[in-house]
Amino acid sequence: MSVFSFLPALLGLFGLYCAYLVYGIVKSAPAGSGKVIDIGDQIHLGAMVFMKAEYSRLAIFCIVVFLAIWISDLGGATAFAFVIGALCSGAAGYIGMYTATQANVRTATAAQDEGPSQALSVAFFGGSIMGLTVASMGLLGLGVLYLMFGGDPHTAHVIHGFGMGASSVALFSRVGGGIFTKSADVGADLVGKIEAGIPEDDPRNPGVIADNVGDNVGDVAGMGSDIFESYCGSMIASLAIASTMSLAAIQQLAYDQQTLMFMPLALASIGLLCSIAGIYTVKHFANRSPEVALRMGTMGASVLFIIIALLLIFAMGGTFNLWMAVLSGAIGGIIIGLVTEYYTGGAPVRKLAKDGETGPATVMISGLALGMQSVAIPVITIAAIIFISSHFAGLYGVGIAAVGMLATVGITMAIDAYGPIADNAGGIAEMAEMEEHTREITDSLDELGNTTAAIGKGFAIGAAALAALALISAFIETISLGNPEFQLLINNPTVLVGMFLGGIFPFLVSALTMKAVGDAAFEMIHEIRRQFHEIPGLLEGNAKPDTARCVDIATKAALNKMVLPGTLAVLAPVLVGFGLGPEALGGMLGGALITGVMMALMMANAGGAWDNAKKHVEKGNIGGKGSSVHAAVVVGDTVGDPLKDTSGPSMNILINVMAIVSLVIAPLLI
Amino acid sequence: MSVFSFLPALLGLFGLYCAYLVYGIVKSAPAGSGKVIDIGDQIHLGAMVFMKAEYSRLAIFCIVVFLAIWISDLGGATAFAFVIGALCSGAAGYIGMYTATQANVRTATAAQDEGPSQALSVAFFGGSIMGLTVASMGLLGLGVLYLMFGGDPHTAHVIHGFGMGASSVALFSRVGGGIFTKSADVGADLVGKIEAGIPEDDPRNPGVIADNVGDNVGDVAGMGSDIFESYCGSMIASLAIASTMSLAAIQQLAYDQQTLMFMPLALASIGLLCSIAGIYTVKHFANRSPEVALRMGTMGASVLFIIIALLLIFAMGGTFNLWMAVLSGAIGGIIIGLVTEYYTGGAPVRKLAKDGETGPATVMISGLALGMQSVAIPVITIAAIIFISSHFAGLYGVGIAAVGMLATVGITMAIDAYGPIADNAGGIAEMAEMEEHTREITDSLDELGNTTAAIGKGFAIGAAALAALALISAFIETISLGNPEFQLLINNPTVLVGMFLGGIFPFLVSALTMKAVGDAAFEMIHEIRRQFHEIPGLLEGNAKPDTARCVDIATKAALNKMVLPGTLAVLAPVLVGFGLGPEALGGMLGGALITGVMMALMMANAGGAWDNAKKHVEKGNIGGKGSSVHAAVVVGDTVGDPLKDTSGPSMNILINVMAIVSLVIAPLLI
Repeated sequence: MSVFSFLPALLGLFGLYCAYLVYGIVKSAPAGSGKVIDIGDQIHLGAMVFMKAEYSRLAIFCIVVFLAIWISDLGGATAFAFVIGALCSGAAGYIGMYTATQANVRTATAAQDEGPSQALSVAFFGGSIMGLTVASMGLLGLGVLYLMFGGDPHTAHVIHGFGMGASSVALFSRVGGGIFTKSADVGADLVGKIEAGIPEDDPRNPGVIADNVGDNVGDVAGMGSDIFESYCGSMIASLAIASTMSLAAIQQLAYDQQTLMFMPLALASIGLLCSIAGIYTVKHFANRSPEVALRMGTMGASVLFIIIALLLIFAMGGTFNLWMAVLSGAIGGIIIGLVTEYYTGGAPVRKLAKDGETGPATVMISGLALGMQSVAIPVITIAAIIFISSHFAGLYGVGIAAVGMLATVGITMAIDAYGPIADNAGGIAEMAEMEEHTREITDSLDELGNTTAAIGKGFAIGAAALAALALISAFIETISLGNPEFQLLINNPTVLVGMFLGGIFPFLVSALTMKAVGDAAFEMIHEIRRQFHEIPGLLEGNAKPDTARCVDIATKAALNKMVLPGTLAVLAPVLVGFGLGPEALGGMLGGALITGVMMALMMANAGGAWDNAKKHVEKGNIGGKGSSVHAAVVVGDTVGDPLKDTSGPSMNILINVMAIVSLVIAPLLI
Repeated sequence: MSVFSFLPALLGLFGLYCAYLVYGIVKSAPAGSGKVIDIGDQIHLGAMVFMKAEYSRLAIFCIVVFLAIWISDLGGATAFAFVIGALCSGAAGYIGMYTATQANVRTATAAQDEGPSQALSVAFFGGSIMGLTVASMGLLGLGVLYLMFGGDPHTAHVIHGFGMGASSVALFSRVGGGIFTKSADVGADLVGKIEAGIPEDDPRNPGVIADNVGDNVGDVAGMGSDIFESYCGSMIASLAIASTMSLAAIQQLAYDQQTLMFMPLALASIGLLCSIAGIYTVKHFANRSPEVALRMGTMGASVLFIIIALLLIFAMGGTFNLWMAVLSGAIGGIIIGLVTEYYTGGAPVRKLAKDGETGPATVMISGLALGMQSVAIPVITIAAIIFISSHFAGLYGVGIAAVGMLATVGITMAIDAYGPIADNAGGIAEMAEMEEHTREITDSLDELGNTTAAIGKGFAIGAAALAALALISAFIETISLGNPEFQLLINNPTVLVGMFLGGIFPFLVSALTMKAVGDAAFEMIHEIRRQFHEIPGLLEGNAKPDTARCVDIATKAALNKMVLPGTLAVLAPVLVGFGLGPEALGGMLGGALITGVMMALMMANAGGAWDNAKKHVEKGNIGGKGSSVHAAVVVGDTVGDPLKDTSGPSMNILINVMAIVSLVIAPLLI
């Protein structure tokens, strides 16, 4: 093990230090005064209370799983890695959200007092803390475990535990956060905007604080854990495949196995440095045009990464083939992102808005069709990445392609998290009744964030699909090592049974999470209606709403309803693996992967398109606000909310959780 | 070849003769007078014009494919079988629809003049002609081809051509008919019921004739071709697998290969006889309770079939193992049917209707969640059938399970077709302004038909999944015979690429067909609005609407928009097979099968539940007609229409078309 082996962990620490520096910059911005601070505190508090409740439940889950791993034949080291993974994932989400709830008020105040450029800076720096934390925690955690267990192919399997911890915590966070945010959002919108006819984020609406808390726990903390698990999953999968590769396959790619095992960490390390450069670029160009700044930052970081990756691979003794895998992943990710942007922002969205002329039913039909159609090009791209990367570097190449796609996660995640901060700042501006121009600035920042976030979502789905696939391959390799006759033939009935069973999960988990949102929103609606009726003077602005009660409803719904889908995902591979055997389990992973990717894309894109169709009408097109077209597209947006922010994003994690749990238990199935 | 080999074809002729006798009974019922006849003629004429136009387009398609097969190495015999399959499929749809448009007026007249029992008889006999025709045409066509080519395993592959003809015509008919019926339905409902506030099927609505024509071309002719192709597909798949089986595998099931090759036809033959007995039972009990009569008929036929199947298998020298496969299919079909009935008629529907209290958005969210959730048990059942049938009889058992599920298609299809006849009779009663009690009788018959049809839909999806799976197995076996090293490993990147590509198709075809309905409905809405505005006195009932123009819009939309999805399904296997090779093609079939089954179940059940939630409210529950809850559930029903009657039903055929085309071209891919 060379001295370079220490670099990932050290760079992880360096990244955290950078995040701390950025936090200092955010903190130094003025937080505003009076009502602004008060509302910001309410949001911060609501988010923290939820996180605390969520994490105490997750702690119980982790203890149970920790013990289960420990007493099984997998041993204490894996159990220990599991806990580290869970802690890192939780920490990434917590830190990101903590700072996001500091950045939102400061963004609103900067928009009011200093203008768009400074507001962009504050919001983007707020998001950057999240991006840097996710990347750094991943490098630090995996880097340390690599130092402890990665030097020897025979102990490397311990590291899988880290992935299982990260993924299962991510699934609960994503589902819980998603249910919270959308039940509040749907409830507040339906009663406030449609029934009472008051604007979004109006302080008279009892649900708005919950809605803004939701943006933080769902779109910031939930997404942070989500990306964290894909990021770590792709590295772990590559490492796992490398540790089981044959000598001939190794020599085709690099001079030794250790190089291949270290490669994902090395690539992620330079990815972090490129992200930091990208963040600096955005800051530098922020004064000119926010749009140019964000695009320069992300694209610049990607291009820089691709170039340095080539140098790194050659320096480490790797071959050109390896770089082709990196390249296919990085370019494929950009293509998927651009397609996502087209379907959620281009001509299809204007057509969708126009379908509002014939009412909500045609908006629904067209939106569902749009979502279904939108899967085609991204999935063809994923297939092309698999084709190219495996052609050049086998299944190891698929893992490396995923690493290539996610290496610059520091900056893509920063932009993802910047969106909800700007959104929150807008909410605060509205609730605190700040000046008109403040809301205009935050709205324009939010809109920009939506477009760039769409690209990020496409990236996340593509990368998760590849990471899951690499994990599945690692699972198959692990079983095959112990049982050379093991084969996953599609026409083996046991494999087929597994494939059908696996195909169910994405549908079932989507159903459970959507129903959870529907039920919680139903409760929220009744509560908000009740307050409008029973609190005298509320609608006239003479009384204060009971916002805490709405936060409470969302919290309870999220905590109760996240249990079943999360547990299902973690337990299913164990039950099928031990009950029906590794063939059925392999088939199940394949089935879940296929339907999961399709559902993720469909739901994300349909939801995004409905959201932007509503925004298109609200800008005064096709009748504008208050028209019958507007009422129709609001229905679309409301239906799209749980699709794009609750059920859709859980798909990625679901397939990764199932794959990593299978990989962890693989040694027991031989 | 024994004398028994002639029986399937002879029984097919006998079945057609029975259908002719039943047609005589229907024709002998009085057709009514004046307006009733006039409206009935309009519907009949509109349907015939559409069928003529559709079939002339399909003729071109068939000639092209015929020539392509002929000049390829597959040869003239397969090309000939293809044409026979296409003709049989078309004839089954045409005969069924022709008689359905005779039965609808007679049902309305019987309901007015003679009461519910006689009305049920006429409607059910109308549907029976369809059921008997589908089963008989299948037996006749396949029986004749079996006599010509089935005696020798080396020529048996010619019979695959028949399946390709049947399946590809079915796909076009299903898609075309589905687009026709739903664009008319959605258009007529949205303007008539919601905007103009006039009842369903009101004669002032210019779209109602098109709507009623649609019921016939979509729900009768389209479905007839649909079930016909699954029915033939399951027999062909079993025969194909039997023709490639090893001696050891054969001896485990029966004393010789010829027995196994003939078995599917033998089972279907006794299934036809059981269906005739079932139809007789329904007629016998119709005087007591319609519900009991229908249930006695279907269940009785199934039980009878299961018993006689055991005797037949033993008589032919087969083993108990074979019967277990039949049994698993027959029982599994019933389970799937009952689950479908629960999700589209039980407590979930009442809950869905209640969600209308908070508007259309929550109805949409809950309905989608319901549809997604509803896939679980049916898919687990399919997995169980695969597990059991393959345990007892290998992949041949999976084919036989599908045959077992579909053997009594004569009666299940009769009940499926009875629904749209009763629905049409109601439409005629409304348009011809017949007495109030007539509509009440037809409504109750229609409702009963909806429930039993739900069971039929579940059956169809389950059977199609098994048939497709058996066809895929036959494809793999065929390739393996020529290339013993051929393997479909899930972790082979080429297979994976195929799986991802295959997974796209169900989403893409659903999107295309839904968009087609959305666009055509949009046009229909504008036309109906125009007529209400521009024809003076129309809404007051003093002027006649221009119904022909609406029929024309639906016809053009259907014919133009059926081309792309149909061609895509037929060409994709050819392109992937020759472009990427048989591994990718095998993977593609697997991917399409998994996502196709899920989407079919989701769309059918969500659509069915929305439909019945609307009916539940219209019966006076939760506010009843005209309430805001009603408006909300009407939106749900409108969205569900294309899901359950256009996109959903095409899924079955899509996967079968892809599988059978692959099987046909398999010899060229070695």
